Amino acid sequence: MTNPIGIISMQFVRPFTRADLGLFQHIRDLGFDFVELLVPEREDDLDLEETAKALGDANLDVVLAARVNLKRSIASEDAGCRQGGLDYLNYCVDVASALGARIIGGPLYGEPLVFAGRAPTPWTDEEIRRRAERTIEGLADAAPAAARAGCVFALEALNRFETDIVSTTAQAINVADAVNNPGLGLVLDTFHMNMEERSIADAIRTAGPRVVHFQANENHRGFPGTGHLDWPVIMKALADIGYRGPISLEPFRRNDDRVGLPIAHWRAPREDETGKLTAGLALIRSCLAMAEAAQ
Amino acid sequence: MTNPIGIISMQFVRPFTRADLGLFQHIRDLGFDFVELLVPEREDDLDLEETAKALGDANLDVVLAARVNLKRSIASEDAGCRQGGLDYLNYCVDVASALGARIIGGPLYGEPLVFAGRAPTPWTDEEIRRRAERTIEGLADAAPAAARAGCVFALEALNRFETDIVSTTAQAINVADAVNNPGLGLVLDTFHMNMEERSIADAIRTAGPRVVHFQANENHRGFPGTGHLDWPVIMKALADIGYRGPISLEPFRRNDDRVGLPIAHWRAPREDETGKLTAGLALIRSCLAMAEAAQ
Repeated sequence: MTNPIGIISMQFVRPFTRADLGLFQHIRDLGFDFVELLVPEREDDLDLEETAKALGDANLDVVLAARVNLKRSIASEDAGCRQGGLDYLNYCVDVASALGARIIGGPLYGEPLVFAGRAPTPWTDEEIRRRAERTIEGLADAAPAAARAGCVFALEALNRFETDIVSTTAQAINVADAVNNPGLGLVLDTFHMNMEERSIADAIRTAGPRVVHFQANENHRGFPGTGHLDWPVIMKALADIGYRGPISLEPFRRNDDRVGLPIAHWRAPREDETGKLTAGLALIRSCLAMAEAAQ
Repeated sequence: MTNPIGIISMQFVRPFTRADLGLFQHIRDLGFDFVELLVPEREDDLDLEETAKALGDANLDVVLAARVNLKRSIASEDAGCRQGGLDYLNYCVDVASALGARIIGGPLYGEPLVFAGRAPTPWTDEEIRRRAERTIEGLADAAPAAARAGCVFALEALNRFETDIVSTTAQAINVADAVNNPGLGLVLDTFHMNMEERSIADAIRTAGPRVVHFQANENHRGFPGTGHLDWPVIMKALADIGYRGPISLEPFRRNDDRVGLPIAHWRAPREDETGKLTAGLALIRSCLAMAEAAQ
C-alpha cells in the first residue's frame, strides 16, 4: 500500500502565513507526500496563487481542513448561521480549486463544544432529530458543488467533548448515506475513534468505501508509536477495505507536560521534532507495507 | 484479589435524592460492594443520617465523589474562589464522616473546562507555575483534616477536555508528592488514562502505593468488556502494585446513539441494564482473580 502520507501544518506553526511557505520544501524533505492545511480565511496573510506555486515547487500535494464555528453551522437553528455554514462550505470548494486540493475534511457541521466554550446541553428527542436533519440537508446542499469541482468533502466525527452532532463512525455513516452524493465521503481520525468506538478496526471496515481521508493519530495525540493504538491492526483494516487515499499525521502534543498546562490548547513546538516525525512516518509506512505483503 | 467493586449512583438516576435510597439494596443485590455517591449539596433532598442508615441496612459501603466548580477552586487566582474550594473540601470531610465514607475522590481542584463552558486558553509559563502552586497549597491545606478524620482525598487527573490543571498520572503524582500527606492519594480512571497515557499499565505501576481508589471505565465509557481496553493487563498492573482498594464502575454511556445526540451529557437509562452490569462486574472480578492466581 503506497497511500500518500502527510503532515498537518500546525505541527510546525500556527497560524500559517506567506512567511511559512518555505515549510513545504521542509515537509517534502522529511519524506511526506502532502501537507494538510487549514482552509485559509479571507483575512489571512496567505495568497492562494502564491501558495499553489509553492506547493508545486516543493512537489507537495495538499489536503484541506475546514474550520467551522457557531456562525457557520449548517446544523444551527438560526437561518443566518446555517447560510453562513453553506457559504463557508462553498468557499472551501473555491479554495480547493485554487490550491489543487481534492479533499476538504473536518467536522463541516459547526456547533463545536469545548473549543467554542459551549457546555454539552441536553436536547429533546425532537431537537436531536431536527439537528440531524439540518446537518444532512446542509451537506446535501453543499456536496454536489464539490463533486462538480472534482472535490469531495470528508465528514469527520469528533469526540464527545468537541461536538454534539456527529461523534461516532456509525453516526457519520448515517449522515453520508442520507446525503448519498459523490461529493461527500468520510474522514476517520483514530484520536477520536479511540474515545468513541468499540473497535477502531471494525469501525474502519464498516465505513468501507465511504472513507476518502484518514488521520492516524495516537491515543494521546503524540507521535504514532508512543501510545497504545495498535497500528498494524489499524493499517490492516485499511488494507481490508482497499483504502488507497491519503493518511495524515497530526502529532502536535508537545513534550512539555506540566501541572497547570492546558493539553487541549495548541502549543508551538519547543524542540526539534524531526527524529520523532520521521520515525512516526516510517512506522505508518511499514505497517502499510506489512498489511499489503501479508494480505 | 478481593477488591471491593462498586457502581456510581448516576448509573441509575441523577440527581440522587431520598426517594432513591431503595437503590442501595438493588445495588447490593446486583453484587456490588459499594456505591459511589456524588457528595450531596446542602440543598439536595438527601438527609445524611437517613442515607447512612440506608447504606447500613443494605450492607453497602460508600465512596464519595467531590463536585468542584469555578467558584470552589483551590487553583483559582481569585482568593474568594480559592476559599470556596477549601471550604468545600472541608465540607466533603464532614459528609464523609457522617456517611462512614473513607475516600473522597475527584478532580478536587476546580477549574473545569467543557463542563463549565470554558474553552482551553493558553497560559504563560508563569501562570502555569502559579496554578500548579495554588493547587498544591490548597491540597496541602485540606489533606490533614481528612487524615485526622480517618479519610483520604483521592486526586483525579481528568482528560484534556475536562480540565487544564491535572490531566496525566505523572502530573497527579507531582501534586501528591509535593503535598506528601496521608490525607491525599490518587484515584486513577481508565477513561481519562485512555486519552492521556502512553501505557495505562505503566502509569498504574508508576503511581504505585499512591493509588487509593480506581475507576474501571471502558475507552468509550460503556460497559467494561465492550471496548478496546485490555482489562486483564490493567488488573494485572493493579496486582503488581498490591492494590487492595475499591474499584468503581461508571459505564453510563447509553445505548441510544443518534446523530445530534450529546454523548458527553449525562442521560437517564433507556433500558434495563442489569445483564450488562452484572457481566461487567463479573469481567472485572474474573480479571482480578486471574491476576492473583497467575502472579
